[in-house]
Amino acid sequence: MRIALGLEYDGSAFCGWQTQPSACGVQDHLESALERFADTPIEVTAAGRTDTGVHATAQVVHFDTEVVRDGNAWVRGTNACANEALRILWSHPVAADFHARYSALSRTYRYLLLNDPVAPAILRNRVGWFHRPLDVERMREGAKALVGEHDFSAFRGSQCQSRSPIRNVMEVGIEREANIVAFTFRANAFLHHMIRNLMGCLVAVGQGLHDPDWMREVLLAKSRDAAAPTFSPDGLYFLGPVYESHWGLPSRTPAYAWLP
Amino acid sequence: MRIALGLEYDGSAFCGWQTQPSACGVQDHLESALERFADTPIEVTAAGRTDTGVHATAQVVHFDTEVVRDGNAWVRGTNACANEALRILWSHPVAADFHARYSALSRTYRYLLLNDPVAPAILRNRVGWFHRPLDVERMREGAKALVGEHDFSAFRGSQCQSRSPIRNVMEVGIEREANIVAFTFRANAFLHHMIRNLMGCLVAVGQGLHDPDWMREVLLAKSRDAAAPTFSPDGLYFLGPVYESHWGLPSRTPAYAWLP
Repeated sequence: MRIALGLEYDGSAFCGWQTQPSACGVQDHLESALERFADTPIEVTAAGRTDTGVHATAQVVHFDTEVVRDGNAWVRGTNACANEALRILWSHPVAADFHARYSALSRTYRYLLLNDPVAPAILRNRVGWFHRPLDVERMREGAKALVGEHDFSAFRGSQCQSRSPIRNVMEVGIEREANIVAFTFRANAFLHHMIRNLMGCLVAVGQGLHDPDWMREVLLAKSRDAAAPTFSPDGLYFLGPVYESHWGLPSRTPAYAWLP
Repeated sequence: MRIALGLEYDGSAFCGWQTQPSACGVQDHLESALERFADTPIEVTAAGRTDTGVHATAQVVHFDTEVVRDGNAWVRGTNACANEALRILWSHPVAADFHARYSALSRTYRYLLLNDPVAPAILRNRVGWFHRPLDVERMREGAKALVGEHDFSAFRGSQCQSRSPIRNVMEVGIEREANIVAFTFRANAFLHHMIRNLMGCLVAVGQGLHDPDWMREVLLAKSRDAAAPTFSPDGLYFLGPVYESHWGLPSRTPAYAWLP
C-alpha cells in the first residue's frame, strides 16, 4: 500500500531534507520514526528537497508498506517517535501511481523577511532579516520579469543536479505587514538555491542598489555571476505542493495565521 | 544619567528574567553585554520579571551610568555583545525619577495557543499547544469574572513574593485566527504564575470541563487548590508596560504582525 503524509518541520533543527551519512536530514529522522512505529524499513520520497535551514509547513511524502494502520495511527504513532521539530500532520492512502514528487503540479514557497534596524530575537532562524528600508513597489516591479517560462540559470546554485534550467514561475507576490515583508513564489518546480538567489536580487532592488529592470537583465544573462549573493535560508518556508484533486489528499487548515 | 532600554527576547533561551548564580537569567546576559560595551558595572531594573520560557517583545529596563553614548550606540554596541536571543530595540535617556517597574501604569501579556490536534514543530517553544477543540465564546464568558480589582490568590504561584494578592485586571481579550487562539491580559501588575494559572482555568472552561461560571467560583475561593494546573509558559509574551506619556519613551512598531 502506498501512503502519503503531510509534514511540518523546523529546518533549523536539521541539515536539509535529504538523507545524510550522519543521519541529520529530515528524511533520516522521518524514516527512523516511521520504522520505529511500523517495525519495518521504510523509504520515503518527498515533493520538495528543502535546503538546510529551510522550513516546511506542508511538505508531502509518500512511501510503500505492507503494514496496515488506520490513518490516525500513522500520525500519532510516528509523532510519538519523531524529533519534536518534525510533526506528521496527516496521512492518507493513495493509488500506487501517485508520486509525491512527480505528481506535483506546482510548489509554493514563502520567504518571511523582518525589515527592521534590529535583528529578530524571538523569531531568529524563523524569519530572514534585512536592516535597511526596502521599497516593496520596486521589488514588485522587478519581480514581474520572473513570471513565465524562463531559463533560470542566473539563479541556479552551483550544485544543482537538474537536467534543465527551464522553470515555469506562476506567481511572485510581495506583501508587507508591519515590519514583515512576505514573498510568495509559485512555480512548477524550483532549481537548487533558486529562491534564495531570487531573494538576494529582490533585496538588492528593494534597497535601491539596482533598478527594477535589473531583474530582467540578470535573468537574460543566464549566469550566476550576474546575480546578487545567495540570501539566508532563515525565513524560507515550503508551503507545499499542489496535486490534482482526484488523488484526494487532505488540505489542512493553516496552523499559523501569519504563514499561508 | 538614567537610561531606559526596550528589549525583545526569546524566553526559551534563558532561565527567566532574574539574575541567577549560574548567570542564565536575561538580566545576567543583558548586564554582561552592557558592561562589555560600557566597560563599567551596570545593574538594570525591569518592568516585569518574566518566568523561564516566557518571551518579551517590549520589556523595558532602566539603569544609571556615568558613561555617555549617543542613543543608537547603546543599541548597536550592546547588541553586538549580547546573546542573539536578546535584542535591544531602543534606548532613551530618562529623568532620574523614572523607574521601569514603579512608574509602569499597566502591563500587557499575550498568550498564543495553537489549538490543533498536532503539536507545533516550527513554533515549538513559541506557542502553547492544546489538542482538543476550544470554545472561544465559553472562555470569553468565563473571563468576564476576572476583570476589575480582585484578590487573585487562587491564581497565585506558591513562590509569589508580592505582599498583596490584589490586582486590577483591566482587560482579558480572546481572539481566534485559524488555529491560533490569542489571549490578551492587561492589569496594573500580575502575581507570580498568575497568567499561566488563568490560562489553565480558561482552557478547562474552553474544552468543556467546567462551566464559564466556574472562573468566578475559583476566583472567590481564593485558594490555589480550586484552580486548574499551571499552563505551559511556551506561548506567553510580555508585550510591555505602559507609562505616562510625559516620560517620552519611544513606542516601537510591532516587529511581528501576528503578535501585538
